[in-house]
Amino acid sequence: MPTPVIAAVGASPIGRTDLPGRDLFSVAVEEAFRDLPDPADLAEAVYVGNQSESYEHQIMHGTLMAEWAGLRMVPAERVEGCAAAGALALRHAVKDVRNGEHEGVLACGVEKMTAGGTGGATDALSAAFDRALEQRSGVTAPSQYALLAQRYLHETNATERDLAEIAVKNHHNAAANPRAQFPKEIDVETVLDSSPVAPPLKLYDCAPVGDGAAAVLVTTAERARDLDVPFVAVPGSGAAANNIAVAERNMTEIEGAEVAAQTAYEEAGIDAADVDIAEVHDAFTVSEALLSEAAGFAPRGKGFQSYLPSEDRADGWTDVQLSTSGGLKARGHPIGATGLLQAIEAYEQLTGTAGERAVEGADTALLLNEGGVADAVTVAHVLTAEVAR
Amino acid sequence: MPTPVIAAVGASPIGRTDLPGRDLFSVAVEEAFRDLPDPADLAEAVYVGNQSESYEHQIMHGTLMAEWAGLRMVPAERVEGCAAAGALALRHAVKDVRNGEHEGVLACGVEKMTAGGTGGATDALSAAFDRALEQRSGVTAPSQYALLAQRYLHETNATERDLAEIAVKNHHNAAANPRAQFPKEIDVETVLDSSPVAPPLKLYDCAPVGDGAAAVLVTTAERARDLDVPFVAVPGSGAAANNIAVAERNMTEIEGAEVAAQTAYEEAGIDAADVDIAEVHDAFTVSEALLSEAAGFAPRGKGFQSYLPSEDRADGWTDVQLSTSGGLKARGHPIGATGLLQAIEAYEQLTGTAGERAVEGADTALLLNEGGVADAVTVAHVLTAEVAR
Repeated sequence: MPTPVIAAVGASPIGRTDLPGRDLFSVAVEEAFRDLPDPADLAEAVYVGNQSESYEHQIMHGTLMAEWAGLRMVPAERVEGCAAAGALALRHAVKDVRNGEHEGVLACGVEKMTAGGTGGATDALSAAFDRALEQRSGVTAPSQYALLAQRYLHETNATERDLAEIAVKNHHNAAANPRAQFPKEIDVETVLDSSPVAPPLKLYDCAPVGDGAAAVLVTTAERARDLDVPFVAVPGSGAAANNIAVAERNMTEIEGAEVAAQTAYEEAGIDAADVDIAEVHDAFTVSEALLSEAAGFAPRGKGFQSYLPSEDRADGWTDVQLSTSGGLKARGHPIGATGLLQAIEAYEQLTGTAGERAVEGADTALLLNEGGVADAVTVAHVLTAEVAR
Repeated sequence: MPTPVIAAVGASPIGRTDLPGRDLFSVAVEEAFRDLPDPADLAEAVYVGNQSESYEHQIMHGTLMAEWAGLRMVPAERVEGCAAAGALALRHAVKDVRNGEHEGVLACGVEKMTAGGTGGATDALSAAFDRALEQRSGVTAPSQYALLAQRYLHETNATERDLAEIAVKNHHNAAANPRAQFPKEIDVETVLDSSPVAPPLKLYDCAPVGDGAAAVLVTTAERARDLDVPFVAVPGSGAAANNIAVAERNMTEIEGAEVAAQTAYEEAGIDAADVDIAEVHDAFTVSEALLSEAAGFAPRGKGFQSYLPSEDRADGWTDVQLSTSGGLKARGHPIGATGLLQAIEAYEQLTGTAGERAVEGADTALLLNEGGVADAVTVAHVLTAEVAR
């Protein structure tokens, strides 16, 4: 069974743009294949993660993106699990390559969130909640994550200032990331003084709205060596869906993420302690705290210390570095593309192309991409440098 | 590599109903597992085909349907390729079982088309066309299929009456199908005298709008034998995306369907001539003619004879029987569920539970499910009775 590898990556700029989704996608593909043969020579199937048809009144992204990448007569489809759509696309590519279904697969994600006008993203994202049991009560994503944050602050020693420090750390990381939507340093007072969104969450606790696309070529190590390009292995993939409603779950033990991460670890033959860097789904600052615990990096109730230097964290913390890209918070969160942007950060870190944000000696990464509120669905991937040149 | 089998099937009623999509889904699951252990004991992953969030303002069908089937912490996702979504769900289940990813997978489809109000389905379906190049010119699905029909009537000896006879044949078949939305006989004059939709297509050339859900358990033959249930094998699966725009394609040679069918035949080790029954994507009467040719059942230009008894068809026709369920035309076409309803018809025919519409001696079936206009994407499956008890 060949170990799938990521051998090429590309992304559009992230943020408000004039380009429609398919052109954002083309920008991502152009970057990924800039120094390679045409996509049609290297990919035999296409998966596209996309959350909502409401932004551009567009479905059938598989066919559309296959055509715009120059692929004809290949299997092509859209996959959707709200904000986990990008990692679902990656997961299909990984499974197809390891199972010998294809030698190369294009995994993409795209979202054109600013096309929906004011309130467009809030409305589109609310479709991820149960229509009868949740949507009709008027809940939004921030209001539900606020429930998690309130409960987390109640159960642990974390403060609003700790959550703010996570945002500060992620903006610091983004400042060194040319792909980031908000590559600027902020201070903790900026977060604490920003507009309330849903207490205790304030504007700077929340990932932004933005357009964006990302594309990743998954193939075999053999083909990547033939192409003479850097590559990283994807030895583990896991996915798990919890109940759709937050009200039905334990809000501070993100069980779906635990299961997905554990599955990916087991497939890869590693433990949480082996992970050097992790991109987790910090749609809100509290998510990074909760997912640090779910991934096994932090003891229960101590995940909020992700912003501290390893030596200052509580006993039981690993020395993993979180959200080196700037995370959803500051790198940006163009929904369907996010899972692949996480993969691109790990690719750059593990192939030594992360520039000044490089984590020295990093050779193992965990990606956690979620859809719906927290672990309504979680998709996990382990990436390793070990087969890289 | 185990050959995947379908070991349980269920569907909701098809047509205008008061039930929301998730309840239609529950009805389908209840039927499929009526005589079996709980779904959670037999399925380790869930794929849900669904076309549009616009009907019920609902995405995340993977998580939602996993929960309503009682499955927790399993991989679950929505797949979308417009009207091919159902077969894409089946394809993932088939691939997962044959690759040993899971021993049992639930493949489902659901659509709540009547929730969109007047014009809702027309608008929702138009999202399958390229936003800039097609949607803005005001095209609808019937207007684009009318281009295919006009061209087909121009290039062949087929007449509008021939296309009408396909509708008559499919209504005749539906009259013997308890699952059908329109289980009633019609005559050819009813079709020819029905309201023009997009010439030469009239109301009775078009598949109806309807709500519906379907669920299929894909597992191993070994497990099906342990369960002591009838089952059919799925030895072949193919998929291919053509250009999204009809304007960019040969309108009477449905190349994507040819590629998808041929891939499925090759995987199954059969030829077109081995197929006894076929459910093809007769969204419009002309589709059955075109797909009979693409599948290799009929010589080019003679596919319109699908309504004739085998002995009266042109030389080069196989003796396949088309759309024994009544097809999309009369069995119904609840978009995301259609690909699985096709599988259910083949299951019933090949396990001897098709009642008075049974095709004697049938042991091999082809399913062709399409999304967008014609072969924007086509998904093909071959089902065989050979490993059935």
